[in-house]
Amino acid sequence: MSEFDDATRVSADGAGAIADGWDINGNANGGYLLALAASHLRAVSGRPDPFSVTGHYLAPGTPGAVQIEANVVKAGRRFSTVAGQMHRDGKPIVQVLGTFGDLAEANDEFTHTDGGPPEIPPMDQCVLRSPVQGVATVALNARLNVRLRPGDESFMRGERKGDAEMAGWFSFADGRPVDPLALLLVCDAFPPAVFHIDLPPGWVPTLEYTVHVRGVPAPGPVRCVFRTHFVQGGFFNEDGEVWDSQDRLVAQSRQLGLTPLG
Amino acid sequence: MSEFDDATRVSADGAGAIADGWDINGNANGGYLLALAASHLRAVSGRPDPFSVTGHYLAPGTPGAVQIEANVVKAGRRFSTVAGQMHRDGKPIVQVLGTFGDLAEANDEFTHTDGGPPEIPPMDQCVLRSPVQGVATVALNARLNVRLRPGDESFMRGERKGDAEMAGWFSFADGRPVDPLALLLVCDAFPPAVFHIDLPPGWVPTLEYTVHVRGVPAPGPVRCVFRTHFVQGGFFNEDGEVWDSQDRLVAQSRQLGLTPLG
Repeated sequence: MSEFDDATRVSADGAGAIADGWDINGNANGGYLLALAASHLRAVSGRPDPFSVTGHYLAPGTPGAVQIEANVVKAGRRFSTVAGQMHRDGKPIVQVLGTFGDLAEANDEFTHTDGGPPEIPPMDQCVLRSPVQGVATVALNARLNVRLRPGDESFMRGERKGDAEMAGWFSFADGRPVDPLALLLVCDAFPPAVFHIDLPPGWVPTLEYTVHVRGVPAPGPVRCVFRTHFVQGGFFNEDGEVWDSQDRLVAQSRQLGLTPLG
Repeated sequence: MSEFDDATRVSADGAGAIADGWDINGNANGGYLLALAASHLRAVSGRPDPFSVTGHYLAPGTPGAVQIEANVVKAGRRFSTVAGQMHRDGKPIVQVLGTFGDLAEANDEFTHTDGGPPEIPPMDQCVLRSPVQGVATVALNARLNVRLRPGDESFMRGERKGDAEMAGWFSFADGRPVDPLALLLVCDAFPPAVFHIDLPPGWVPTLEYTVHVRGVPAPGPVRCVFRTHFVQGGFFNEDGEVWDSQDRLVAQSRQLGLTPLG
């Protein structure tokens, strides 16, 4: 078993736990929380793969036991839609809605690709994220091999590029393959792109986060790019793409984040 | 009262109806269905505005009575999150998850805009969509004033631009203002951008549709642009932006659609 499998294991009745070491300063990463919840929704769906999963974040997740509720809303011929919630003692942490199916049934009769993987140097020339990040402890980084495109780490030195884009490589530190469930983590595993514009590095709460899984990743690390186009009214979007070793898009994500209150 | 207000009125106990005339060949538009459901979720939330609403589509919506269930998952200081479902006699039509708040509390301490409204000619130089569209009857178009950027209507003649982008103006035919609730309709009211690439015009089912409302539109029509970057595996994304008369972004949308089965 891998660290990620251990940390997303949920019993058939929905009993699970937010594992230690997937946090930023003690609060579990939102992508990890969505993967944890979705692992149970997926089991309840009876389908192998998440297709589209949305989470609304209601409270920070700290390590310890949680309960995951999951109710099949519709089980169709190709898809099953499941509504659910992760809570602790009745206090909601994440509300989730997902549709699950089988990515092996992919139909490539029509294809169209406008764009491609981010242009980044080979993994060994990119900058490994460490668990100690100035005043922050990003424990999550010990589980992961997140390597930023050279220059994208400059926010750590207080240098901002001025455009809100963050790119790099992702793999698990223990070598676990990046599968469709893991993509729910991957799309939230990078430093926020807004660290390169207005916002001081720190905790950036997420209101909503959606991942569309667009394919099963081919073996090897994946390349990721995250962009924020609009910061206004106290909110910002962050749009992500994940590309596999065969230059195929495997996930798209979008989250609606909150800027710090003035 | 306006046509849109009439068509999205839901009683306090969740009894409502899919109104006549908001359909394409008899199936109600997905944006209209989300607005109808969200009007009840919003009422239950006790907050004035939708911030982020996601719908998973489970069955086509035909005119007639429906029931909308809505349960407050969390009522916080700034936001309320509500989970819900529109169904008919227990058969689910759309499963919905939304967070609601008050857009008047917008905090513009941090702003950053990368991009701007689509460059389109004045409304009277754009091409009005009519309810009769070749073999399709887009009854919805009689309620709306959707005017496409010249050239974007070429798919009607079987001419495809080759890039999947569709842009134009939106207002209500009866002059009702475009408010935050209406933005849930607006982001699904244009012909699919994929009609300019591979896919033959026709019914394009939506699996998932999310709208983030980013501001209260200033008076006047709004400008919209929809783009599809990736068609693969039987799915495509369509990303939308809506801009108001003050050149401010008021909504972002993304949907995951299904290509016809081969």
